[in-house]
This record gives sequence, structure tokens and C-alpha cells, in this order.
Amino acid sequence: MKNRSIQDIPIAIVGAGNLAYNLAVALYKRGFRIVQVYSRTEKAACELAGQIESTWTTDIEQITPDASIYIVALKDEVLPGLIPRLVKDREKALWVHTAGSIPMNIWKENITRYGVLYPMQTFSKQHEVDFKELSIFIEGSAPEEIQILQAVARSLTKKVYEIDSERRKRLHLAAVFACNFTNHMYTLSSDILKETGIPFDAMLPLIDETARKVHALSPADAQTGPAIRYDKSIINEHIDMLVGKPYLQELYRLISTSINIRNHKS
Amino acid sequence: MKNRSIQDIPIAIVGAGNLAYNLAVALYKRGFRIVQVYSRTEKAACELAGQIESTWTTDIEQITPDASIYIVALKDEVLPGLIPRLVKDREKALWVHTAGSIPMNIWKENITRYGVLYPMQTFSKQHEVDFKELSIFIEGSAPEEIQILQAVARSLTKKVYEIDSERRKRLHLAAVFACNFTNHMYTLSSDILKETGIPFDAMLPLIDETARKVHALSPADAQTGPAIRYDKSIINEHIDMLVGKPYLQELYRLISTSINIRNHKS
Repeated sequence: MKNRSIQDIPIAIVGAGNLAYNLAVALYKRGFRIVQVYSRTEKAACELAGQIESTWTTDIEQITPDASIYIVALKDEVLPGLIPRLVKDREKALWVHTAGSIPMNIWKENITRYGVLYPMQTFSKQHEVDFKELSIFIEGSAPEEIQILQAVARSLTKKVYEIDSERRKRLHLAAVFACNFTNHMYTLSSDILKETGIPFDAMLPLIDETARKVHALSPADAQTGPAIRYDKSIINEHIDMLVGKPYLQELYRLISTSINIRNHKS
Repeated sequence: MKNRSIQDIPIAIVGAGNLAYNLAVALYKRGFRIVQVYSRTEKAACELAGQIESTWTTDIEQITPDASIYIVALKDEVLPGLIPRLVKDREKALWVHTAGSIPMNIWKENITRYGVLYPMQTFSKQHEVDFKELSIFIEGSAPEEIQILQAVARSLTKKVYEIDSERRKRLHLAAVFACNFTNHMYTLSSDILKETGIPFDAMLPLIDETARKVHALSPADAQTGPAIRYDKSIINEHIDMLVGKPYLQELYRLISTSINIRNHKS
């Protein structure tokens, strides 16, 4: 008989969205045994289960009692209300959620072994994420749970940090700026570009270089453009070009002001 | 005697900022002869000239009359006022500027051969840019000038597009969103991160993946995060965390609204 390794612990994945999908596939590829996938929708549950040789269910009452770790990656809004039904008859297992902004204590009233495993990344099913390249932030209700989560996370990446819920929430806010808001800047850029007839592909070298620069320079030092130069005539022309889209005009104005406030204070 | 090639045309570079620096070095490496660098500051002029085996001056009156092409990469605000002095006694040469938002006609009153060569990229002296990966947008006062600028630009990249000043200005606006505003999101993220004690490096995999995703998906399809999920409780918590920074709270609110308006209309 082989030695018992972290991979032998049976895991259930609750959720089949972008994060659940990528995390489950990454765990499966590292040799973990995913015993079941739960999702509200049959299609998502079945699709993910097919990728990782797992069973699946769409019925909360049918969630397997046989897992030792339940990794829950549901929408932030629905998780709190579902906890009592999720953990019922499965109270002895270790339950973890994967959300940046939900405190660990959300589990506290219902179970004794719980924690958080938050991989800081943006996930999509169309593009498989390399977990070796990302940071995972963990938190646990007791040293034993922390140790288990350390082992699970370390099997995916070397960058594992233990942080509390308050710091994780702040981290999530930072991630919203670096990822979600950045992506929205790409969207607005793409909308503006459409009117020129130039394909969005032409913008990719600029997007890539903007990301690449902050590997070598601090973002504040890397700042270029009309706002940092106080170039009022260009700024005003740009705002004029956004005529008919008052919220975009306001957005342009506010980000330009913010660039000035931030980059001339330090 | 060898055949005359585009590289034999003597070029002067007016300006020694980030764009001028990178463009001059790229041209030099492609075999062009840069006969002179002008900059207001001795240090910048001398440093760039040293990289490209060129002479230099800080005196506009001393700009060489011996170049056939003058590439002007000065701050947008100063260019218009300097043109009469720049072109004096050098009226026969081809003059081009490199700005996204300045119309080509700015040259019209003073000379007959002019144009624009706009490389759409973010430049810094600390990090040399690979011109093969970027798009250059050109415009010329006559077919012969367009042909010359095509040849110069094509020696640097395959992606050369001829567009007029109006479309270029719109392109520049798109670039401000994709690059300058994106970089500011990185800066704000880095500021927030500082308070957690986690190094900015931990954010780089997320930044890289956010950029990588839009190579495969449209930015609108790649959008994730609390705003696109209408997750009001997280949004409100995040805004609360930015207490004491009212313009950041307003920015967070406005970008979240913009994500919703944009992503649920199409």
C-alpha cells in the first residue's frame, strides 16, 4: 500500500462556474480525486464532471457525504443562504469557500472545521489558467485545517500565503482594480476603436506592453499619456469626442483627475 | 556604389523623450542614419545621441539643415508654437510628427512636405520596445511623402496603416483607455495592496492573465468581478473600504456602473 498523500483526500466541488471549473481541473491534473461536482445547472455540472472523471448532481440534498473537503465556489450572494442546506449531514468535513470578499466566519455557526482558499486570478472556461503562476491565499479555523489547505494549495503553486479575512478583502479590492476595472478599460477602448474600422487586434501590442512594463517599473513610474502631462487641450478634445455618452465623459474626466492627484503626490 | 535604399535618407530626430528615444534607437538598429538629435535638455540629447552614433544640439537654430526627414516627437502642447522656428531654412525637407491627437495640417501653413508617423505604443527609456510587435499609423501631404513614410515604417513593422487625422485621434482616445487608464488601475491597485503588506509582484499573474484573455475573447466577454454580477453587497463593502478617498469611491462607483451599462446592452 502506498503512503497516504494529500491527493488521497476525497474532494467535492460545489459550483461549476469559471473558478470552480479551473480549480477542479487543476486539482484533477495534480492527481486529486474529485468525487463529485454540484451545480444548479445540469449542463455545467455534467461538463465539468466529464473533464475530471467525477460524478455530478444538481440537487443539494444529493451532495455526497463521502468527501473530506468541500470546496465551495458559488456566487457570493447565494453562498450565505445555502450554507445550512449544504453542510447538513456533512458537518464533520472541512468546508472552504473561494471568495475574496466573504469572511471565513460565515461558516462558524454551522460547522467547526472550515476555511478559505482564494486563488487570485481571473478565470474563464475558454482559457485554462496555469495555477503555477498564481498566488493562493488561505485561512483556516484551526492549525490542522490550515495545514491541510497549505498542502492542497502548495500542490498547485509555490505562492501560498496565509492571510485573515480583513486583509483578503482588501486584496480582493486591489484585484478588482487590477483585473475587472482594467478589463473594462479594454472594453471601452474596443468600443471606441470599432468606430475607426481598425480591428481590436491592433491594440493588443499596446495592452501587452502596458502589462509588461509593470514587471520592471512601478505602475506610478510607468504612467504615460495626456493626463500625466497635464495636456488639457488633448484631454478636452477627447472628452468632446465622447459626446452623447455622458457617463463616459465623466469617467474620462475622473480617471484623468485621479492620475494627476496620485502621480503628483508621491 | 550600392543601390539607394530608404536607410540612406538622413534623418534628424527632434525630441529625446520616451517615444523619440525608442523610435530613434529602433531606426538606428534597422540601419538608418540619424544625423542629429535635438532636445531642450543637454542630458537627454546627449544620452540618445550616444546610443545612435549621432550628433546632438539643444539649440533650435542649430538644428542641422542636412536631414531629408525630420521626425518630431515633442510634447503635444509645445509643438504648434515651435513649428515656425523648427522649419526655418529647412522648408524643403519632409517633416513628420508622431502624435496621436495632433492633426497633420498643423504643418500646412509653413511647409509643403509633411506628414505623421504614429507608433501606437507606450514607451519608456528603461524598457526597449520591440517595434516588430506594434502598429504604425501614417499620413502624408502627398503620395510621394506617403510612400516614403510607408517605407520607413515598414522597415520597423509589417503593421503599417494609412489613416487620416480624424481616425487617428479616435485611435489615440482608444489607446488612452487601453494603456494610460489601464496603467492607472494598476497604480490604484498597488496603492491598495500596500496596506495589506503583500508585494505588488503577487498581482502580476492576474495582470498578465487579464491582458492574455483578450487575445482569445472580446473584452466584453472576458469581464468578471462584482460589477458584472450585480453583487451590490461586495460593491458597497469595497466603496466603504475606500473611505477618506472620495474621488476613489466615486471612481469605483462610476466604473462599476459603466461595466453594467456596457455589458448588459449588447
